[in-house]
Amino acid sequence: MIQTPGGREMAEPFTVQRRVEFCETDAAGIAHFSVFFQYMEQAEHALLRSLGTSVLMRDGEGHLSWPRVSAHCDYRGAVRFEDVLDVQVRVQRLGEKSVTYGFSFLLAGQVVAEGSLVAVCCHVSTEGLQSLPIPDSIRQALARYT
Amino acid sequence: MIQTPGGREMAEPFTVQRRVEFCETDAAGIAHFSVFFQYMEQAEHALLRSLGTSVLMRDGEGHLSWPRVSAHCDYRGAVRFEDVLDVQVRVQRLGEKSVTYGFSFLLAGQVVAEGSLVAVCCHVSTEGLQSLPIPDSIRQALARYT
Amino acid sequence: MIQTPGGREMAEPFTVQRRVEFCETDAAGIAHFSVFFQYMEQAEHALLRSLGTSVLMRDGEGHLSWPRVSAHCDYRGAVRFEDVLDVQVRVQRLGEKSVTYGFSFLLAGQVVAEGSLVAVCCHVSTEGLQSLPIPDSIRQALARYT
Amino acid sequence: MIQTPGGREMAEPFTVQRRVEFCETDAAGIAHFSVFFQYMEQAEHALLRSLGTSVLMRDGEGHLSWPRVSAHCDYRGAVRFEDVLDVQVRVQRLGEKSVTYGFSFLLAGQVVAEGSLVAVCCHVSTEGLQSLPIPDSIRQALARYT
Repeated sequence: MIQTPGGREMAEPFTVQRRVEFCETDAAGIAHFSVFFQYMEQAEHALLRSLGTSVLMRDGEGHLSWPRVSAHCDYRGAVRFEDVLDVQVRVQRLGEKSVTYGFSFLLAGQVVAEGSLVAVCCHVSTEGLQSLPIPDSIRQALARYT
Repeated sequence: MIQTPGGREMAEPFTVQRRVEFCETDAAGIAHFSVFFQYMEQAEHALLRSLGTSVLMRDGEGHLSWPRVSAHCDYRGAVRFEDVLDVQVRVQRLGEKSVTYGFSFLLAGQVVAEGSLVAVCCHVSTEGLQSLPIPDSIRQALARYT
Repeated sequence: MIQTPGGREMAEPFTVQRRVEFCETDAAGIAHFSVFFQYMEQAEHALLRSLGTSVLMRDGEGHLSWPRVSAHCDYRGAVRFEDVLDVQVRVQRLGEKSVTYGFSFLLAGQVVAEGSLVAVCCHVSTEGLQSLPIPDSIRQALARYT
Repeated sequence: MIQTPGGREMAEPFTVQRRVEFCETDAAGIAHFSVFFQYMEQAEHALLRSLGTSVLMRDGEGHLSWPRVSAHCDYRGAVRFEDVLDVQVRVQRLGEKSVTYGFSFLLAGQVVAEGSLVAVCCHVSTEGLQSLPIPDSIRQALARYT
């Protein structure tokens, strides 16, 4: 926990490191803007793994999945091949069926991008996707990062 | 031009078709959410080509490029392998150095996603990226879709 | 049919056009070598569609798919953003359960790359993948390009 | 060094681990075959980094790069989301201007794929690509894995 000046406690983020790979750069010499969305998802999945769950959890004859209803990213600086980013994840909002993740991308301590994902808890079967309440075990685990 | 009920004229969007490729789907059986950002860029580039310019315009010893400062997408439905999407592009805002594109993704006439990109006009050289005012020829061409 | 000097008839290839997209380039300013494998698959799928079938054909409770057992590409020249390639597909070998496709990539009439894919006809279900003989309707359709 | 039965010494491979990410899977539920080529390149780059060099080495006004002239992969088994692969790299051939890397992909000790890349040492500048002899420092470093 971090004590903010006003006394409110803010959870420390979950953090993973991610190196920019060559195939993720483009002819402008920088990481393509779309790969930040892949980095967000990979950090989210690493967080779910760290909680002992997975983004594709078996559940009877189908499985749980987390399709996205919204994704957003603001870019403040360019990153290049072999740059190593710190990707911080926070749970910004924990709804009944959805979770909003906030992401900060840091290069050498400077924020180079910030983003968010809204994911909905769904049951996937041969009939398609059906939203459902986030299972309690996952909800309690995610609450650590709110 | 389309006459809206209140009399304001709205430009018709620029539209391209895009088929969902197999490598763009994921293990949930649907197009991965990150590919919509690639579709947006491809539609933007098709629009720039249709205007007689290109996203990588030579300019003395360097070239013009359009790095993104913001990208956003809301998802209303899933799309699958071999679905053919209509991708509509509009110019939502034309600033001095930046342009905001709005995108609608339609499958069989139904909106399945909506997004936006904010791109900044930059000169790219070996020294890096430097923002500059959008050249008049491009500005006038883009104004057709505002 | 094309008459070769020695009199053997060679089928004309199936051909699609593919523009190099910006996200497919890398920091060396050229299309990343891995995207040629995506182009091969997209040309294969376009061929299957043209034959009235699809790479993901429903089949009772599962579906047919064509996982690859081998993929190969030789590169003779670089291609860049917005280059438009002619991708030619030929059926090099039609086995009982597998098909070998040969691909030529041309830019302005010059071959810039050549590749091949070996795909095996499989039934996909919740139990996994199981190879099976290529259905006659598909075999006869593919034979046109041998 | 490993002593083979016949007494010839074989270098131990350079090995990296790579987790299959969700965006790398496809609608057949497995890692898309094209991502193995990205894995090969990422392992090659990790090897170059471990040798104190990089795939994009500055060199006067341009830089060194390693465009590919050939790429190949044989697939023996499917891998799925969150599988962690051991990617082994060996230097199969060290020519004057080119290097051939061999790759083995193992999942839980079983080989699931094997591949190779042939890369040519090039100088990249605004004039384009020009092949050149592999610098001695890199040649000596790579020789450790032959």
